[in-house]
Amino acid sequence: MEPVRVGICGLGTVGAGTFNVLMRNAVDIERRAGRPLVIEQVAARRDNPQCDLTGIPVTADVFDVVRNPRIDVVVELIGGYETARELVLEAIHNGKHVVTANKALIAVHGNEIFRAAADKGVIVAFEAAVAGGIPVIKSLREGLGANRIQWVAGIINGTGNYILTHMRDQGRSFDDMLSEAQALGYAEADPTFDVEGIDAAHKLTILASIAYGVPLQFERAYTEGISRITFDDVAQADSLGYIIKHLGISRRTEEGVELRVHPALIPKERLLANVHGVKNAIEVMGDAVGPTLYYGAGAGAEPTASAVVADLLDVARDMATHHDYRTPYLAFSGIVEGDNSLPILPMDNIVTAYYMRLQAVDRPGVLARVATILAEQGVSIEALIQKEATEGELVPIIITTHLTREANMNEAMRQLEALADIAGPVTRIRIENLDENV
Amino acid sequence: MEPVRVGICGLGTVGAGTFNVLMRNAVDIERRAGRPLVIEQVAARRDNPQCDLTGIPVTADVFDVVRNPRIDVVVELIGGYETARELVLEAIHNGKHVVTANKALIAVHGNEIFRAAADKGVIVAFEAAVAGGIPVIKSLREGLGANRIQWVAGIINGTGNYILTHMRDQGRSFDDMLSEAQALGYAEADPTFDVEGIDAAHKLTILASIAYGVPLQFERAYTEGISRITFDDVAQADSLGYIIKHLGISRRTEEGVELRVHPALIPKERLLANVHGVKNAIEVMGDAVGPTLYYGAGAGAEPTASAVVADLLDVARDMATHHDYRTPYLAFSGIVEGDNSLPILPMDNIVTAYYMRLQAVDRPGVLARVATILAEQGVSIEALIQKEATEGELVPIIITTHLTREANMNEAMRQLEALADIAGPVTRIRIENLDENV
Repeated sequence: MEPVRVGICGLGTVGAGTFNVLMRNAVDIERRAGRPLVIEQVAARRDNPQCDLTGIPVTADVFDVVRNPRIDVVVELIGGYETARELVLEAIHNGKHVVTANKALIAVHGNEIFRAAADKGVIVAFEAAVAGGIPVIKSLREGLGANRIQWVAGIINGTGNYILTHMRDQGRSFDDMLSEAQALGYAEADPTFDVEGIDAAHKLTILASIAYGVPLQFERAYTEGISRITFDDVAQADSLGYIIKHLGISRRTEEGVELRVHPALIPKERLLANVHGVKNAIEVMGDAVGPTLYYGAGAGAEPTASAVVADLLDVARDMATHHDYRTPYLAFSGIVEGDNSLPILPMDNIVTAYYMRLQAVDRPGVLARVATILAEQGVSIEALIQKEATEGELVPIIITTHLTREANMNEAMRQLEALADIAGPVTRIRIENLDENV
Repeated sequence: MEPVRVGICGLGTVGAGTFNVLMRNAVDIERRAGRPLVIEQVAARRDNPQCDLTGIPVTADVFDVVRNPRIDVVVELIGGYETARELVLEAIHNGKHVVTANKALIAVHGNEIFRAAADKGVIVAFEAAVAGGIPVIKSLREGLGANRIQWVAGIINGTGNYILTHMRDQGRSFDDMLSEAQALGYAEADPTFDVEGIDAAHKLTILASIAYGVPLQFERAYTEGISRITFDDVAQADSLGYIIKHLGISRRTEEGVELRVHPALIPKERLLANVHGVKNAIEVMGDAVGPTLYYGAGAGAEPTASAVVADLLDVARDMATHHDYRTPYLAFSGIVEGDNSLPILPMDNIVTAYYMRLQAVDRPGVLARVATILAEQGVSIEALIQKEATEGELVPIIITTHLTREANMNEAMRQLEALADIAGPVTRIRIENLDENV
């Protein structure tokens, strides 16, 4: 059968990985695609010593690839928003299918891109945009297609998980671990995207769109980072039977869809709590299947390439057919045909349990005042641990709560912090028990 | 668009689950399929109170369904080998696609069935045959399609995992736990299929065929059950840093494919070791993606239905197209187009590490004789623990080994059991460290 002619834009880490996987596993890939996948052209601003480009046409201009009439599928691996957006839109306009690993592009410009692809009848595939090599997009979209998805909860940023894992293992501080992650190349010089949850929110936005059939609404995602987590919190969580992870959580309720990234205490015995280091994992709860979990490398050259090439296989198999892409493919991606009747919920509306750490002045009646504020806000205490203080020092108080509406918790926090008995800000971390209803 | 007309054969646990999921989630399923899935006919020998069959044509004869000219897809959920085989072959002969949850049927008669399907140009899909609702077939076949798969290792029998989990938790014996599993409905009255590894070998056979593109060869799978595991072994494993699981393992080596089901010690910190109760999980190592893991319910009405309906979605999307099924679909299933150059290896050829437990007579020179036998067989000892014995009793000796060829281990075992110093049979359980090369 005719080969599928692939153009690769970008020969950085993932570009090189994709190139090498396509070359090395060409025989297996051809068997699975039913036809060969041929690299027709590569766009790269500089050589990558990882790749042997002998015999492959190379251009410095990525737009050469999307204008190359011989190319069937454009693989966008240049990253960033603006040039990538232009490149993908022009590829679509030229009738080419697109495979991309660019989570920011999909989360922010996805609605526009999918609309254009639907109009033109081409595929835009993006398995590599979420959790690297883990086939979680395919699992959600196809493997769990029978289910009404109830929630998705994932460790979808390897940098953050590396930091939290080793804060706990080695009793180290956030800053200390961040420096190590930077030295090892797991964190960028500017770590904001990773540790403040923006990268995870991009991925969660994509997962939620597929899970619930709602449009991409990255701008409505809540993000809270891990930079204020202390080893104290990690140790307290441990003694309470929990592990702190940086989670992306999306839940479908009667009122709408939750879309939130924040640190969370999860029960130690959960599989998700045992995902360590830079690895990723996503737990998905479906009404028929119950809980399922997908684990693997969330980043790296070849793991990400594995997902890029899986998308190429899907494109190749679809190209062997003669159907109208607009209906079956895009409809089932769940993104374009979004159900606007399900709004993204404001954080005030979410209901979860909480862990709190307060520093109290050692005075009679402090606990009563704290308990009164919580009671007035309808916050029900599950456990309260008052640590012993040495003479003249502040007394740490640890509180865990039952399910509470976030708006009430916020008001309680405001009043607690205003108490003369309470020193400094109150630490508040959500507890996610991840049962049927999160 | 035209609906896909589905005929369900069998209305037992999984049949009822499939019926109910198709009815309850019809709107979501139609969105994902791009067209409605309609239940055209159900074959059931008796009513199932779980299902409201109002308005659905019901027949007592499953063959009515495969002969019904209005039906596009036959869902085979009657189980067993012979009638199911006839039913599926006749459905194929009549030009109908087939979805089945029948692992025994696929593992034993799959080659014949896929050949017939290829000749006729129809799909035979079987996600539900392995690990219930976990989309592991799709992940292996499509999501990891870029990879050369190196090994697959899975907990793919919930009954066995339930027994082993609670032997460890509760310090109970195999027989005791088996009775409990039977009382709870997790184990059959005749538990042979589950606890002796036959059910797991059916599933492993299917996974290996997809992973490596080899024909189904269930008759060459090695099976060893868990009925001889004692709580002593469980506790010893624990103190050595391992958990005993009943694993299906398939590895591709230079010489061929390993296909084996047996108890194994796996390191406690592995995610797979933390899969408890009736849950299933499969770890897959690909050369590009590295290790990935898929977890969820391996059985039950709606989890299995989730996989059946996912297959129906695949069929529905394929039916919307006009391609020649013989090439793309069956080729990429990896089963028919098997690579016969990779034989299934005899157990003598496998290389793994071992845990051994011996009962020695407390006499001078016993250890030397044991060590000599092992040395002569090239078995390298990693650790040897001799327990203290009370006067006149047998001394338990625990040995762990480095990687050893199974033929050598078998010969060593034979010689050890022949020693006058060693009482009774030697316990030998494989240790699987599940690193890059297993």
